[in-house]
Amino acid sequence: MAMGKISPWVSQAKEIPVEMSSRIRLARNVRELPFPHLVEDDEMSGVIETLNDTLDDFNRIDLEELKFEDKALLVEKHLISPLFTKRGRLSYINGDESVSIMVNEEDHIRIQAMGAELSLDELYENASSLDDRLESRLDYAFDDKYGFLTACPTNIGTGLRASVMLHLPALSLGNRIQRVSNNLNRFGFTLRGIYGEGSVPLGHIYQLSNQLTLGQSEEDIIKSLNELKARIIEEEIEMRSIMHNEHLIKAKDSIFRSYGILKHAYTISLKEAANHLSNIKLGVDLGFLPENTIRFQELVQLIQPAFIKMRLNSLDKEYVSLERAVAEERATLLREHIGGTI
Amino acid sequence: MAMGKISPWVSQAKEIPVEMSSRIRLARNVRELPFPHLVEDDEMSGVIETLNDTLDDFNRIDLEELKFEDKALLVEKHLISPLFTKRGRLSYINGDESVSIMVNEEDHIRIQAMGAELSLDELYENASSLDDRLESRLDYAFDDKYGFLTACPTNIGTGLRASVMLHLPALSLGNRIQRVSNNLNRFGFTLRGIYGEGSVPLGHIYQLSNQLTLGQSEEDIIKSLNELKARIIEEEIEMRSIMHNEHLIKAKDSIFRSYGILKHAYTISLKEAANHLSNIKLGVDLGFLPENTIRFQELVQLIQPAFIKMRLNSLDKEYVSLERAVAEERATLLREHIGGTI
Repeated sequence: MAMGKISPWVSQAKEIPVEMSSRIRLARNVRELPFPHLVEDDEMSGVIETLNDTLDDFNRIDLEELKFEDKALLVEKHLISPLFTKRGRLSYINGDESVSIMVNEEDHIRIQAMGAELSLDELYENASSLDDRLESRLDYAFDDKYGFLTACPTNIGTGLRASVMLHLPALSLGNRIQRVSNNLNRFGFTLRGIYGEGSVPLGHIYQLSNQLTLGQSEEDIIKSLNELKARIIEEEIEMRSIMHNEHLIKAKDSIFRSYGILKHAYTISLKEAANHLSNIKLGVDLGFLPENTIRFQELVQLIQPAFIKMRLNSLDKEYVSLERAVAEERATLLREHIGGTI
Repeated sequence: MAMGKISPWVSQAKEIPVEMSSRIRLARNVRELPFPHLVEDDEMSGVIETLNDTLDDFNRIDLEELKFEDKALLVEKHLISPLFTKRGRLSYINGDESVSIMVNEEDHIRIQAMGAELSLDELYENASSLDDRLESRLDYAFDDKYGFLTACPTNIGTGLRASVMLHLPALSLGNRIQRVSNNLNRFGFTLRGIYGEGSVPLGHIYQLSNQLTLGQSEEDIIKSLNELKARIIEEEIEMRSIMHNEHLIKAKDSIFRSYGILKHAYTISLKEAANHLSNIKLGVDLGFLPENTIRFQELVQLIQPAFIKMRLNSLDKEYVSLERAVAEERATLLREHIGGTI
């Protein structure tokens, strides 16, 4: 497994407007074992033996053997959670890094399936078949009334979190996200920035996901999410055509300035870089820039700190300030990666 | 005379670092006539007849026959003063637009000689020989004790204002202008922005000029100004090498971002455009960008409102907001004029 490379499922994905990727996550626990925050190592040993046995086609990652920077890379690739870098010990990741398992994150077992061109239904199939493989060997904590039991009550029932990552620059720049988001909350879904904590998330990238796991079947959750996703995409596309028709020069100005800046800057922050990439991707989607100008999804990962630090290390460069060296290396990477000469 | 074109002496000038152009202005009045703010038209008729006669090799400009936009162009070309657009009636301009005369501006006669590659001494020669031509036909108001008498007491004596236009981005960005300027004031010289009223003038372009006209000979004023100019240029060059040696990435980042933005923007304000042009010129001077990237002195004039409006009119373009159309046309002009593909 190439730790410092973009996941194969990402680098092979076709870039389309708005929709970036989808993810299914299942939370499972083993009956009669304390939840992860209370369980002792020796109590888990049987489960881990079974997992090793069952997941022999997966890469087994011992987190204790990884340097901090490598764990950070796994987070930036969305293969493990930030929480897991601190107390995680064991993870299993498949060949194209689209399916992964965290052992003893918040629950004993968290299965995740990601994909860029697969529907949520297909991803649910993938996760489910892996879930079935494990269930045939492990005795899951399952209650006939409540369903799957989980460490945090918000996951009880299906243990399912379905999500889609959406690039919503037009809704975001048009200040429509809040309204969209409020509507979703009423249906038990949520829309929030996937990167960054500010009011406008990095690169205008949002994650739409279900909040409720109880009282609905997996199929219903996915069906509703698909419907809401389609509606948000429609609204984004509508806002884009308003942008195109009513604010053409302003839109072109902002898109091409971003292009000019990434093509020429010598130092750049993550936030600024993500914002320009978002503009350029919008420019590609609107037909102002050629399709090969950027691979948005890849670049949004490649400009993250751990990826940049890895590049820096491989260069054996000397620097006084790491922060400044990262900002400079990020600019260098972007100058190299922004295609075409316009 | 091509009103809407850059003055020949500007477009033929060689671009060098820091020093942009020099100017000599002489203020003269005719004995026994009231100063311009009090003089009647018929009282001036004799003087004007003499001027027409003497300046037959000059283009005679009747300002009353000009549209407002054409007067604004003359101001942007520094051929007449802003004050003169309101109450000026008559001006004489020579072939390459380097020598001009305003009649009844603040004084009866203001002679101006500008040049990019000529020294102040040479320009003073040019202005002086024209002055001599006029003096042989007109009776100047001259006092043996005070020298030339002028409408405003700040010009009495030599009636001379000598000035040099300097591009001082490094002193300006390094916040050194105030200190330099305070020093100059002690010697009776002043350094101020030539464009714009803000604390940092448009394009970091400053004008160094004498404040005192009394008690010093013309030669002494010019000699002191040349010495001070040399010292300021030296300080600017020193600050540039500090920039280059100690803040290389920051300097390159700012220079190349400016390049990327002017190469790609679709709308831009005068202030922002001038700032980027200044950065690009600095980049050329520091050897980061090829010499033919821009003609700084020309472009700083071409992006001014009257020049842009003239372009707009010639395009017969329709627009809703003049202000927005100007900002867009300015960006178009710059995209066309920024040379090279880096």
